[in-house]
Amino acid sequence: MKKPIEQNFSVPFRYQVHFTEKVFDQNNPLFASLLGGGATQPKTLFVLDQGVATAHPELTRQIRSYAEAHADQFKLPCAPLLVPGGEQVKNQQTWVDAILEATHIHGIDRHSYVIGIGGGAVLDMTGYAAAIAHRGVRHIRVPTTVLAQNDSGVGVKNGINAFGKKNYLGTFAPPYAVINDTTFLQTLDDRDWRAGMAEAVKVALVKDAAFFQWMEVNAKRLAARELEPMVELIYRCAELHMQHIAGGDPFEMGSSRPLDFGHWAAHKLEHLTRYEMRHGEAVAVGIALDTTYSALKGHLHPEGVTRVLNLLTALGFDTYVPALEQPDLLNGLQEFHEHLGGKLTITLQEEIGRGFEVHEMDTALVTEAIDRLRTSTGSERLSCYAS
Amino acid sequence: MKKPIEQNFSVPFRYQVHFTEKVFDQNNPLFASLLGGGATQPKTLFVLDQGVATAHPELTRQIRSYAEAHADQFKLPCAPLLVPGGEQVKNQQTWVDAILEATHIHGIDRHSYVIGIGGGAVLDMTGYAAAIAHRGVRHIRVPTTVLAQNDSGVGVKNGINAFGKKNYLGTFAPPYAVINDTTFLQTLDDRDWRAGMAEAVKVALVKDAAFFQWMEVNAKRLAARELEPMVELIYRCAELHMQHIAGGDPFEMGSSRPLDFGHWAAHKLEHLTRYEMRHGEAVAVGIALDTTYSALKGHLHPEGVTRVLNLLTALGFDTYVPALEQPDLLNGLQEFHEHLGGKLTITLQEEIGRGFEVHEMDTALVTEAIDRLRTSTGSERLSCYAS
Repeated sequence: MKKPIEQNFSVPFRYQVHFTEKVFDQNNPLFASLLGGGATQPKTLFVLDQGVATAHPELTRQIRSYAEAHADQFKLPCAPLLVPGGEQVKNQQTWVDAILEATHIHGIDRHSYVIGIGGGAVLDMTGYAAAIAHRGVRHIRVPTTVLAQNDSGVGVKNGINAFGKKNYLGTFAPPYAVINDTTFLQTLDDRDWRAGMAEAVKVALVKDAAFFQWMEVNAKRLAARELEPMVELIYRCAELHMQHIAGGDPFEMGSSRPLDFGHWAAHKLEHLTRYEMRHGEAVAVGIALDTTYSALKGHLHPEGVTRVLNLLTALGFDTYVPALEQPDLLNGLQEFHEHLGGKLTITLQEEIGRGFEVHEMDTALVTEAIDRLRTSTGSERLSCYAS
Repeated sequence: MKKPIEQNFSVPFRYQVHFTEKVFDQNNPLFASLLGGGATQPKTLFVLDQGVATAHPELTRQIRSYAEAHADQFKLPCAPLLVPGGEQVKNQQTWVDAILEATHIHGIDRHSYVIGIGGGAVLDMTGYAAAIAHRGVRHIRVPTTVLAQNDSGVGVKNGINAFGKKNYLGTFAPPYAVINDTTFLQTLDDRDWRAGMAEAVKVALVKDAAFFQWMEVNAKRLAARELEPMVELIYRCAELHMQHIAGGDPFEMGSSRPLDFGHWAAHKLEHLTRYEMRHGEAVAVGIALDTTYSALKGHLHPEGVTRVLNLLTALGFDTYVPALEQPDLLNGLQEFHEHLGGKLTITLQEEIGRGFEVHEMDTALVTEAIDRLRTSTGSERLSCYAS
């Protein structure tokens, strides 16, 4: 019999995350410059989060004026497609199908662009549609929330929910470019302003003690909605997230996923609260839980737990919610395992700025950690863990 | 404003195309050896082409026996999912949804396997479902036709049709492994035996004059269904195809696609004949057309055309079909262009074994080439072009 034919190649990916303000102001050349340069003007299909359109009622008109002013660089075949914001947009196939139909009707090809403007859910859904049309058309993300600008929007994943499972359908598909526009941050409601900071706490805990310390110093300004430290937080968090993707296993072929620290419980909490908890709010509780567990298990010094809970509280997060007590919570471990496959792999902390992986969790200790979160508040914490 | 964050990484892909016979004979260790080795037995979900199941009525039982004999290496959570063979399986979302639901019900995760057994259409559809479930579960292809074993099944593309457009939805997703089992070739009907050879003629014309000459020498044996030269043809064609993928632009981010020689007309002919023409049959006519055009345009010596038409005829292909005369045929150029995007890029021939690219086609000459194909047959050809 003939010997096997070996296939072996690497696919290079490259993109930039740009920082700007008023991206569709006619005098801002950034967006047009990303598309221009070819002999023909490429087509652009915009998908716009309804929540963003409401907070920025002038946006649709601005996009049209911008396209007219840059008609030599790109074409706008139709008005932006409006889609609902938030997790609901990922809960059915409808919106993906609407985008696909628009790509068909308007002849969006592999050298055209689908531009998603919105929060993480809208970008996840839009990115999925863009990734499967013609086996992937060019996709530009304009994330409008803290969470999307510092985490989900700068990475390589997309997806929608199916069969009651989060992100059951999706692909790994690096964007063509990402544009972080600070203008959008200013109209966020307080919950969305806050929620995205949970991913910054997470990545700092796993990768960068100095960044954690910086957040401790700036917690008050961040909680008070000062823009300048927020842009700083987004930049550093996005950078750490992207370095992690590039340095490891971008398409997650292995079982290790340190950036999912705190996420097994977070995913389950979102589901248990029917997505009344935002992703970042659930991640904050998940971080509090796995940090506490790390200490109870003897990996992390109790003082570390105090610092983490204090920072989360200072940023305005709850570190305990009643949904933690639902018996189904612990099934989140199994579901997290199934999504990833292979060996169960959970990241814990050994010190602030350094995570490590375990392959089993002591469920009695998880329950004890939940008890501690329920009963501990602020000043009690140090004594609570110093025993 | 802050400077852009640069993202830059490469994702390595590696897989093997194995050659074997009787892959699910209990004494053949190949399949189990591809899955084994982990601490836990991974799950396998089989998707089986109904045409293959009919031609090999023992196959489902063999797979079950094989799984029982190798229960230490993998688990079979359910019977194979039977799906219709041929292009129809790609014309609706139904079958993709059925596979996705099975992955959900049986807990197929990113370390489990979806195994597609069948012709190119079934593998394209199955590969697409496997690529979007959990952002990609492991996918093993067992191609059963000549076309799938030497071309579509060994590459990195998957997809289904939508909006009346071929492969409108899909992804680039390298398989985990491919198993070419010669057993399946022996039950192919004559059309499927023959059709797959068109891709071998194509790749030889564009890349390998010696392979073309080898086919000229072996045409009679290939047409007479001798297995040994067919395995040789499949091996060399698969190898050239895979080398091309690895050496160039695996995920087709540019506009160049030399392996689509003859394909603009082929895709349109399939559509115009409502898929009564098989893909390979249409590719044979598309090759005849673009080869003739290359000569009329003065790029290829007329003797080259004669050799190509004679080889196609010796292998049993028609080089002319009435559908070529339909006025809509020329729209195939535009549709081919739209699918790929960017600049229209068509491969022509300058000599046997060497293709080159053009960015426009002279439609009057295409029409003349069709006239030549209609009127020329066998021995007349040389004189027909020598004028």
